[in-house]
Amino acid sequence: MNGTESFWGWGVSEKFPERKTRRELAERLETELGFPDLTVQEPPSLSECRVPEPSVSLPEDVPCTTERDVRIHHTYGKSYPDLVRGFRGQFGPAPDAVAQPTDETDIQRLLEWASEETVAVIPFGGGTSVVGGVEPDLEGRAGLDGTTSRSTGAYNGVVSLSLDGLDSIHEVDERSRRARVGAGIYGPALNEGLEAYGLQLRHYPQSYEFSTVGGWIATRAGGHFATRYTHIDDFVESVRAVTPAGILEARDVPASGAGPDPNRFLLGSEGAFGVITEAWLRLQPRPVHRARVSVEFDSFWGGVEATREIVQSRLTPANCRLLDPTEVLLNEIPAPGKSVLVLGFESLAQPVESDLETALAICDSHGGTIQDETESADAGDSWRNSFFDGPYLFNQLVSMGVLVDTFETAVTWDRFEELHTTLTRAVQNAMADACGMGVMSCRFTHVYPDGPAPYYTFLALAEEGRELEQWRQIKSAAADVLIAHGATITHHHAVGRVHRDWYEQEQSETYLAALQSMKRTLDPAGIMNPGALLHNREIRR
Amino acid sequence: MNGTESFWGWGVSEKFPERKTRRELAERLETELGFPDLTVQEPPSLSECRVPEPSVSLPEDVPCTTERDVRIHHTYGKSYPDLVRGFRGQFGPAPDAVAQPTDETDIQRLLEWASEETVAVIPFGGGTSVVGGVEPDLEGRAGLDGTTSRSTGAYNGVVSLSLDGLDSIHEVDERSRRARVGAGIYGPALNEGLEAYGLQLRHYPQSYEFSTVGGWIATRAGGHFATRYTHIDDFVESVRAVTPAGILEARDVPASGAGPDPNRFLLGSEGAFGVITEAWLRLQPRPVHRARVSVEFDSFWGGVEATREIVQSRLTPANCRLLDPTEVLLNEIPAPGKSVLVLGFESLAQPVESDLETALAICDSHGGTIQDETESADAGDSWRNSFFDGPYLFNQLVSMGVLVDTFETAVTWDRFEELHTTLTRAVQNAMADACGMGVMSCRFTHVYPDGPAPYYTFLALAEEGRELEQWRQIKSAAADVLIAHGATITHHHAVGRVHRDWYEQEQSETYLAALQSMKRTLDPAGIMNPGALLHNREIRR
Repeated sequence: MNGTESFWGWGVSEKFPERKTRRELAERLETELGFPDLTVQEPPSLSECRVPEPSVSLPEDVPCTTERDVRIHHTYGKSYPDLVRGFRGQFGPAPDAVAQPTDETDIQRLLEWASEETVAVIPFGGGTSVVGGVEPDLEGRAGLDGTTSRSTGAYNGVVSLSLDGLDSIHEVDERSRRARVGAGIYGPALNEGLEAYGLQLRHYPQSYEFSTVGGWIATRAGGHFATRYTHIDDFVESVRAVTPAGILEARDVPASGAGPDPNRFLLGSEGAFGVITEAWLRLQPRPVHRARVSVEFDSFWGGVEATREIVQSRLTPANCRLLDPTEVLLNEIPAPGKSVLVLGFESLAQPVESDLETALAICDSHGGTIQDETESADAGDSWRNSFFDGPYLFNQLVSMGVLVDTFETAVTWDRFEELHTTLTRAVQNAMADACGMGVMSCRFTHVYPDGPAPYYTFLALAEEGRELEQWRQIKSAAADVLIAHGATITHHHAVGRVHRDWYEQEQSETYLAALQSMKRTLDPAGIMNPGALLHNREIRR
Repeated sequence: MNGTESFWGWGVSEKFPERKTRRELAERLETELGFPDLTVQEPPSLSECRVPEPSVSLPEDVPCTTERDVRIHHTYGKSYPDLVRGFRGQFGPAPDAVAQPTDETDIQRLLEWASEETVAVIPFGGGTSVVGGVEPDLEGRAGLDGTTSRSTGAYNGVVSLSLDGLDSIHEVDERSRRARVGAGIYGPALNEGLEAYGLQLRHYPQSYEFSTVGGWIATRAGGHFATRYTHIDDFVESVRAVTPAGILEARDVPASGAGPDPNRFLLGSEGAFGVITEAWLRLQPRPVHRARVSVEFDSFWGGVEATREIVQSRLTPANCRLLDPTEVLLNEIPAPGKSVLVLGFESLAQPVESDLETALAICDSHGGTIQDETESADAGDSWRNSFFDGPYLFNQLVSMGVLVDTFETAVTWDRFEELHTTLTRAVQNAMADACGMGVMSCRFTHVYPDGPAPYYTFLALAEEGRELEQWRQIKSAAADVLIAHGATITHHHAVGRVHRDWYEQEQSETYLAALQSMKRTLDPAGIMNPGALLHNREIRR
C-alpha cells in the first residue's frame, strides 16, 4: 500500500486532498449539480475517536491484539454509513479484539475457543465491504438502523479475524496455469508474485488495491471484465475453508459433475459458515491484443439496445460500460448530454479489430457515433482512472456533507426499462423527501445475453446528525423497487447486514431454511459472522 | 421419438440391427480387436421378463400406474449393468408403481403421501442415467454389488416419478433470449418448440434424443460444446423444484452476487433434495459461421500439447475432441495408428476462419497434419454420427457377450500424463484379470485452460452370469485410480449409486455433512431418491 491506510475513509490518507481542492469540488457540485452552499469539514484525528473498552478475555494460544488503532481499523467497511460514522469519530461497534492468525491451526484454535465462549468471529480481509459485512453489529444492521454503538445480543464479545497473516502464494502450476494462494493476499501482491511466471489473475474489482482473494471469494466480487469473467467465481478452481466443524474444501480439478459444486457453497458465504483460507485460482498471461473505443448515443435507450445486441451476438467485450448522461458528467467525459458506451476487447491469441468492428456496426445501427480516436482514448483513460480512484471521491463528498452511495443489480432485458424508470422515480422522490434534492446516475458495469447489471450512484444533501436516517430512506426505496421488479438485491456487492432483509425476500423460504441447516452443521455455536448474510438465530448460553 | 423405446437397451428397438449385421460387428471385433469367437444372442421378449408384484397401496389423489410394462421401463438406466440385466430379462428392482403427475400439485401430494408412508420416490426424466441414478435400489449399488433384486431397506416401497407430464414450454422471452420450460421436456421437443422463435438451447448431450431438461440439470449433464458451455449449468438462468419441505427456487435474473448461488444447490442434486419441475434456460440463435477440420498426430502426446495450447490461448472451439488411436479405430476414421483432433468453431457474429487458422498453427507446431478437406469433412461427420448413435453400439455388444462401458473425469494438465498412464495400466490389468483380455480407448470430450476431461471406453470379453462381477472389478480399478491421482470421479456422468463410494472419497467430510444437513431439512423423511448421491441415512419407522 502506497501510504497510510485511512482510519475513517477509503484507501490511503495521503490521497485525501487538502481543503482547497475539496472546496473546488464543492463548487462544481453547487454549479453543475444544483447543490446549495456546502460546508467543507475536517476529519477527526485518530486520538479523538470514541472506542469502547474491550470486554472479553482472549485465548492464550492464538495471536490477538486489543490495540485501539487496530480495533478502529476493524470496525467498519467502506459504505457511506461507515464513512460518515468514521468521519464523526464514532467507533462504538469496534470489536473487542483482532485475532491475527498466521496459519490454519491458529484459526482452528480460535474457532474452538470462540465456540466454547460464545464469542462472535468476523473474518476480515481488506475490510472494503459496502454492505456491513465486517461490522461487529450482531443484531442491528450496520447503519441501516442508525447503529453507532455495538449490539452483541447474546454473545459475550466479538473478535475480528484478520487474514493478513495468510497471504502467501503457496504454489504456481505453470503447466495448468493456476496457483494456490492464501486468502489474505491483496490484489497487487498477488499480481506482483505472479509476474515472475508471466501470469496474471486478471480480476480487478474496484477495491483491487485494498481487498483480498478471500474477501473476493466470500462476497463473489465482480471484476473489471464486463462479460464472460464477470465474477471471481469464474477464476476459482477450488476453495478451502476452516469451519468450526472442520475443513471444508473442494478438489482442485478443472471441472466436475459430481454433485452440487462444493465451491459454490463458499463463493458468497460471507464468513457465515467458516473462514476461507486458500484457493486454487485460474491464471492467464497478459493479453496481447487490445482495442478500445467510445461510442456516443443521443439516447440512453439507443445505447441499451446496442449493448443488448452486442452481448446477444455472443461477442465478449472486456469492457462494455454504458454511461448515462449523469455518469458522463460525473466522470468528466467531454460529451455533455450524451450517453457513452465504453467498449473494449482484449485477446491472447489474435487481433480483436474484427470484434470491435462488428460491435461498432451494431452501435451504428442504433444511432451510436464513434468518438475520434484521441477523444476515445481520453474517455477510456478517464474511465479507468475514475474507476479505481472513484471511491476516493466519497471521502471528499462526506467531508462536505454530501450523502453519496451506490447500489447495483442485475435484471433480464424484458424487465429493465420498467425497473429503471420506476427506480429513478422512487430514488428521486426519496432524495427529495429525505434531503430536499439529489442526483442519480446509471451505468452498466457488466452485461449478459439475458440482461444487464446496472449500477446506480446517488448524491444528495446530507444534514449533520441525520445522515444515517436519510441514507436509510433512500437505500430502502431503491431496494424495495429492485425486489418488486424481479431484480436481484445485488450483482456483486454481496448481502452483508445491509441487504439482509431484501435478500430474504429474494430467496425462497425453503432455500433459506436449507442454508440455515448447513450453518447449524458447520457452525453449531453460531459464532461465524452472525447477522451477515443470514438472520442471526437465537443463541443459547 | 421415432420408434418404440427399447425396454432393455438404448434408444428405440427399431435401431437394434438384425442378427446378420451384429455378426458382422462381431467379426470386426474378432479380427481387429483380438476378441475370440463371439456368440450372438437374442434379447428376451417383454413378456418373458421377470418382474416382482408391486407391494404398496397408492395415493388416491395422484395419477399412478402399476402396469407391468411401465414399471419395467422405469427399472434401470442405461449403463452396462442395466443393459445386461435387461438383456437377461431380470427386472427384480422394478418400482412398485410409477407416478405420472401432470403438475406441481400432484408432485406435492405425492411427496406428502410418500413422507407419511415412508415410500421412496425416484424422479425419472428420460432414464438415461449410466450411474444407477434411477434404479429402485436403496441399499445396494445398482449393479455394483451384483444386484438383480430390489433392496428397499427400511422403506415400505418405491415409486418412480415420471416427469413426462411436465413437458411444456411455458414462456419464451425473446428479448432476453430465454425460456421457462417444464423439467420433463425432451431435447428434440424443446428445440422444435423454440424453432418458431429462431432460438435454440444448443445443449447436446449424447443422450439428447432420450433425456430431459430436468435430468440434465439434476445430473449436470455435459453438452457437445468442448469449451465454454461445457455443462447445462452454463445455460441455466434459474431452477425451481418441489421438495418435501416446500418449493425451492431461484430468482430468474441474469446473474447475482447475493449469497451462495441457489441454482447450484439443484444443479447436480440428482433428486436427493426434491423434484426439479421447471427452469429458465438461456437460448441463442443458430450459429451463422462454422468451420471444422481434423488434424492427425503421430503421437497422442503431441495432440495433448496442441489441445492444451489451444485452450490456454483462450480460443473457444465448439469441438476440440482429441481421439487416441483406439478411438480412431473404433470410430472408423481412416487414419490408422494416428491420434486425431476434431476441431470446430462456430460463431453468431463473425467468421471463424481466423480462430481456426490460429488453432491450426498451434497444431502444426506440435506435429499435427491437417487432413484434406474431404477427409476432414468425413471425419467430422463420422464423428457426429457416431456421437449420437454410439450408445446403440452397446446394445449390439451386449448381445454378443462383450462387456462395454465408459467412464470419464477431469484433471489438471500437470497430473494428466501420470493419471492416463496409471489408468491405462490399471484397467488393462483388471480386464486381463477379470476377462482374459480387453481394449481401452481415450478421447477428450471437453477441455479447459486448467485441464482436460478425458473419456475412456473399454471393451472386454464377458462371461455369461459373471458380467456384473467382471464389470465391477474393472470399474473399481478405474475409479480407484481417478481418486488416487487427483481427478474427479465424474465430469458429467453424475454420481448416482455407482459412483457414491468414490464421491465420498473425493469430497471433504465436512462438505458431505453439510449436504446431509440440507437433505434433512428439505427431505425430513428421507424419501427422495435414497442411496443416490448421498449415503442413505437410517430411516426411523
